[in-house]
Amino acid sequence: MKLSVKSLIGLSGLSRSEIEFMLEQSESFKEISYRPIKKVPTLRGKTIINLFIEPSTRTRTSFEIAGKRLSADVINFSASSSSLTKGETLTDTAKNLEAMKPDLLIVRSQAAGVPELLSRTVATPVLNAGDGFHEHPTQGLLDLFTVREHKKKIAGLKLAIVGDIYHSRVARSDIYGFSKLGAEVTVVGPPTMIPSGIEQLGCKVSYHLDPVIPEADVIMMLRIQLERGAGNFLPSTREYSRFYGLNLKRLEQAKKDVLIMHPGPVNRGVELSPEVADSSYSVILDQVENGVAVRMALLYLFCGGADEVSA
Amino acid sequence: MKLSVKSLIGLSGLSRSEIEFMLEQSESFKEISYRPIKKVPTLRGKTIINLFIEPSTRTRTSFEIAGKRLSADVINFSASSSSLTKGETLTDTAKNLEAMKPDLLIVRSQAAGVPELLSRTVATPVLNAGDGFHEHPTQGLLDLFTVREHKKKIAGLKLAIVGDIYHSRVARSDIYGFSKLGAEVTVVGPPTMIPSGIEQLGCKVSYHLDPVIPEADVIMMLRIQLERGAGNFLPSTREYSRFYGLNLKRLEQAKKDVLIMHPGPVNRGVELSPEVADSSYSVILDQVENGVAVRMALLYLFCGGADEVSA
Amino acid sequence: MKLSVKSLIGLSGLSRSEIEFMLEQSESFKEISYRPIKKVPTLRGKTIINLFIEPSTRTRTSFEIAGKRLSADVINFSASSSSLTKGETLTDTAKNLEAMKPDLLIVRSQAAGVPELLSRTVATPVLNAGDGFHEHPTQGLLDLFTVREHKKKIAGLKLAIVGDIYHSRVARSDIYGFSKLGAEVTVVGPPTMIPSGIEQLGCKVSYHLDPVIPEADVIMMLRIQLERGAGNFLPSTREYSRFYGLNLKRLEQAKKDVLIMHPGPVNRGVELSPEVADSSYSVILDQVENGVAVRMALLYLFCGGADEVSA
Repeated sequence: MKLSVKSLIGLSGLSRSEIEFMLEQSESFKEISYRPIKKVPTLRGKTIINLFIEPSTRTRTSFEIAGKRLSADVINFSASSSSLTKGETLTDTAKNLEAMKPDLLIVRSQAAGVPELLSRTVATPVLNAGDGFHEHPTQGLLDLFTVREHKKKIAGLKLAIVGDIYHSRVARSDIYGFSKLGAEVTVVGPPTMIPSGIEQLGCKVSYHLDPVIPEADVIMMLRIQLERGAGNFLPSTREYSRFYGLNLKRLEQAKKDVLIMHPGPVNRGVELSPEVADSSYSVILDQVENGVAVRMALLYLFCGGADEVSA
Repeated sequence: MKLSVKSLIGLSGLSRSEIEFMLEQSESFKEISYRPIKKVPTLRGKTIINLFIEPSTRTRTSFEIAGKRLSADVINFSASSSSLTKGETLTDTAKNLEAMKPDLLIVRSQAAGVPELLSRTVATPVLNAGDGFHEHPTQGLLDLFTVREHKKKIAGLKLAIVGDIYHSRVARSDIYGFSKLGAEVTVVGPPTMIPSGIEQLGCKVSYHLDPVIPEADVIMMLRIQLERGAGNFLPSTREYSRFYGLNLKRLEQAKKDVLIMHPGPVNRGVELSPEVADSSYSVILDQVENGVAVRMALLYLFCGGADEVSA
Repeated sequence: MKLSVKSLIGLSGLSRSEIEFMLEQSESFKEISYRPIKKVPTLRGKTIINLFIEPSTRTRTSFEIAGKRLSADVINFSASSSSLTKGETLTDTAKNLEAMKPDLLIVRSQAAGVPELLSRTVATPVLNAGDGFHEHPTQGLLDLFTVREHKKKIAGLKLAIVGDIYHSRVARSDIYGFSKLGAEVTVVGPPTMIPSGIEQLGCKVSYHLDPVIPEADVIMMLRIQLERGAGNFLPSTREYSRFYGLNLKRLEQAKKDVLIMHPGPVNRGVELSPEVADSSYSVILDQVENGVAVRMALLYLFCGGADEVSA
């Protein structure tokens, strides 16, 4: 299948069949991480640059492992000590990296729109590894992959996304991805944390968690990002936790086969009680594991593999 | 030989024969670093994560070189920019990394007990690269290896460990390792820097350096870690140096074949005079070189090689 | 050809034929970055350490990509978290790294002379990746390579180097390199930024840009390094830009085939107007691209390839 896009900026820009194609491709890569020799020569001689303008060890590690298991050369380029602090424009930094002939740029930034801007600036494909409050498409894809693995389908499922929708790029990618594949998405949180008009993305809104729980097939608990000032939108984390945290008592109201998800890192005792995080309903670590498989598939597809598959 | 442990937390948990087995294995890896092509395919397709919660360039570099010479994929995960700063618990960080299917976690931490805690948390084997004031077992093993290389034996030798015993994980690993292999260990330092009851680990104590020197076959000079507040335990580094520093005059009292060792980095003029550090008695750079060989052996053994050897 | 030097400290220490040999070698490496599989086994099993005492993401990335495309193991060793902050001397750090048997040290430092000092300290070859205000020989070589690629020669060309000559290691390497190969070099800048006596390096001096432009075949615009205090040598960047910045109006006075160069990162609107930076005269991105090829050649030659070629 030939992808309609050069770069992966967000799930909003992909068709349903493109998303499904990426999920299918991911399946074939998952098995590699279970082999005694977890390495295939697929991307040997390809250069992948992790251009992380916003620091992130976890996502960077997932991409780096994915790249190395495909035999790519992975270069970490962090902005803190880079030319960006010397007055160079972002587009000049990207053009400079492009001149070194990488096959793919993986871009994370605190500002929304940077991956798209850079994708327009350079011929090299760009994978968005999270940009501001915009999208985090690889997270959206691994969430889809994880739900599909457990539920064998996406269409017809009810997904609740709970927490700080306003500041969450994960929420946006999940809303786009799950809606496109036919799930019914409800976002849940305090009014200060739900942007007005979010329904236009194709989801429902609830300011109360309790009525949503019994209906949900999947509950995605978002992280309260205290390090980014989320505290300003809350009276206190204790009060947040009382109204929007998931504990064993609330979990009793849920379906017996509900999936509890979280993009991590978890604030135990805030979004999730430890008992819920470690319960059999939680597929949080499956998400992390599937992240490597999904990213392997995306590295393969956006380094030219999509064209080969279509041929 | 099948190791009795999944992880290498400390030399205190190993038997004499296990330590000797590791030293023998290390010998066969040393030669690789002298080849024109310093690389063997032993760990191809294995993923090793350097989880360094406490920064350390030197030890991290030694492990990274060891891993790459065995063809492993080595991922550096430093805590400063990681999820640990976002409120995630250490065990959750380890479980997240485990979900990415590494074959080995190399853990360094400022707090004692972290490698053991993580080893109990995850199924992945853990190598302790130094934890607080507890142990630094790979340093202990490379010290044993270096002495054995020069003296052809450990049993019966007299080892003096000089300096800040209290805050030294190297001292603890050396006491365990050299004692188990039959050496006689004496720790030497000012009373503020020797914990009471240390004799129970199987060593002697001396508050004076001069009477110990003529007896010693090996003198291990510890680093005064000024950056960790060691100055609070000393009147001054000049006074420390006068009573516990090794200079040419003191060296004259030593055996003609004494070995001078130091785990590095050396404070020249504090623990050792420059003349002693650079003398023919000094095997400090041998220690660094052997560190790569010992770590290659340990990476091999704890990535499953021990079982193969036993089969 | 057998090189006369173990290490590459500066272009001042090389003969004309050695520089030409390096440029010729670089040509054969450039094509590798255009292949679908950008990797050759030339340096498989070699260990290269990037010892960057002064941080630099761009140059480090260029060297890292060069090393990986040659299949070398590249280890990044940054000084900020290293033993250098613990009181170890630089020469001890280098000797420690040498004990781990690397094949090459790439050294960048804020202080002039560090690469030479370390090259005298260890047997391992050293490549200077920029030292203080002294030299940046790989930049000088990639500048020569880029000019030669476009002009088919160096001898007889007129090169103007414009800006803060005083603080520029790039200027020094370019003066040495272009002079040795027969170009006529003029340095241009305000009197506060041109060291007295610079003519002794074999260049002319002009305090005015306008009379130099019509004569020049190549105009090398240097970066005003505001982050290093260059502002103290200028009334204001606006005034600097008015007298020494290159804009379209000034460019009209230049030869029709003039080359505009810049070592990057560019301060758009200070040294160069955006229109000039993006004009067809600009070969700034060619410089970046050629940097990878030149560094591949140098890694090859200083890891022993020069001897093989001569044999």
